[in-house]
Order: sequence, then structure tokens, then C-alpha cells
Amino acid sequence: MSEWLEELQWDEKGLVPAIAQDAASGRVLTVAWMNREALAETAQRGEAVYWSRSRGRLWRKGEESGHVQRVIELRLDCDADTVLLRVEQHGGIACHTGRESCFFRKLEQGQWVTMDPVLRDPSAIYGKK
Amino acid sequence: MSEWLEELQWDEKGLVPAIAQDAASGRVLTVAWMNREALAETAQRGEAVYWSRSRGRLWRKGEESGHVQRVIELRLDCDADTVLLRVEQHGGIACHTGRESCFFRKLEQGQWVTMDPVLRDPSAIYGKK
Repeated sequence: MSEWLEELQWDEKGLVPAIAQDAASGRVLTVAWMNREALAETAQRGEAVYWSRSRGRLWRKGEESGHVQRVIELRLDCDADTVLLRVEQHGGIACHTGRESCFFRKLEQGQWVTMDPVLRDPSAIYGKK
Repeated sequence: MSEWLEELQWDEKGLVPAIAQDAASGRVLTVAWMNREALAETAQRGEAVYWSRSRGRLWRKGEESGHVQRVIELRLDCDADTVLLRVEQHGGIACHTGRESCFFRKLEQGQWVTMDPVLRDPSAIYGKK
């Protein structure tokens, strides 16, 4: 493994959170998790690869949806336990609900209110199940 | 506890990651953790309160440094397991190293390279130890 990968403070499961931010608009799009392999492949391919905790395998973002995140820049925080990806979001949709960003709910008077429109119906993105 | 707090998917330690983003510049400043109490107090005070995992107590951001994060907007992601705070960063410094953002290192040719200047010496922020 490369030295730069060893500088990270991987948690007890060998993971760190990875934030994807749209490089153009600055919008925070997604938060997912990476293990060493996912981060190494992200750097090598120049496209976001995460570790899917629910599926227990590498998840090449966009593998089903086509909504690939091309990496413009990879950043690390002071504690070396969180990664920030500035990305170009293919299709302008990062969320599996068909929205630009996963952060589409806002707290208003004690309720989480959906603020952002669905840009494309998920059944059109993922096909019928 | 309020219903909106129960909608979150707290992890096995009762925590969620919380991203603070500068509401004006869009810069991602910090990632820290919140438990129910921290999030409730954040919403109530309108200033970021985190759960310090290293100190095992609530951490009112800015309590030592003065670098309070005033919350403009609180957002939740689709999985309800990450919180995004759009904030006004008091003093323009979020990181304990005296930099604007904790994400001051960028991956360049297999090395983490420091990109951003120290705006204020930490010893001036926190006093001598």
C-alpha cells in the first residue's frame, strides 16, 4: 500500500467518511464510506469508489445509475479521519432518490421538510425492479 | 425527545457525522460528531454543538477558541445518518491549526500537501499550554 494511504486514521472497521462536494456549485452531494481499497481505487481511476456498508463490497458510484463522480481534487482533514472529494457530478444527480444532493431535507420548526425537486424518477434511473 | 431527532439513524454509539459548511463561501470547514443531545442543543441555540469522542463530553464549538459556528440551516441526508450544517464561521477560522478549514491538505502525486495558510497562530487562539 502507498504511504499516503497509511497516513489516514482508519476507524475500527477500517473505514473513513468521504464527503463528495460539487466542484462547480459547492453543493455537498453525498456522504459515504471508504476503506483503503476504495480510496486507492478512487485516486487511481479519478472516479469516486466507496465501500458499501450495506452490501459489504466496493461500490463504484454510478455503476447502476450512470451518475459517476469524477474527482477534481482529494482533500484530507487535520485529524486525517475524513476525506473530501471535490467532484464533477455526472448527470447532475447524486442521490438515489433522483435529486441533485442527498441533503434535500431541511429542519423547519421541528420538522424535516423536503426542499429539493426530484430531477429524474428513480425507476427511470435504475430500471424496474 | 422531539420526533425529528428520532428520525435520525444514530449509529451503534448513538452518533452521526455532522458536516459544517460555510454558508457564504460554500467551503467545507469541519466534520465532527453529534449525539441526540448535541443536535438538540445545536437546533435550540442556533450554534454548533458536537460530541467530542476524545473528551467524551459535549463540545460547544468555539468554547475555547471563540470560533463559534452560527447555524444558518440544518439539513439531513436521504439515509438520515448524516447532518449538514450551513454556518457562519466566527473569526473565519474553523480548524484548531488556525486555518479556515480542516481540509487543508490535498493529494498531489501520492502525497498529502498542505495548501492553505495558517491565519492565526494556535497559541494565540488557545493561549499557552
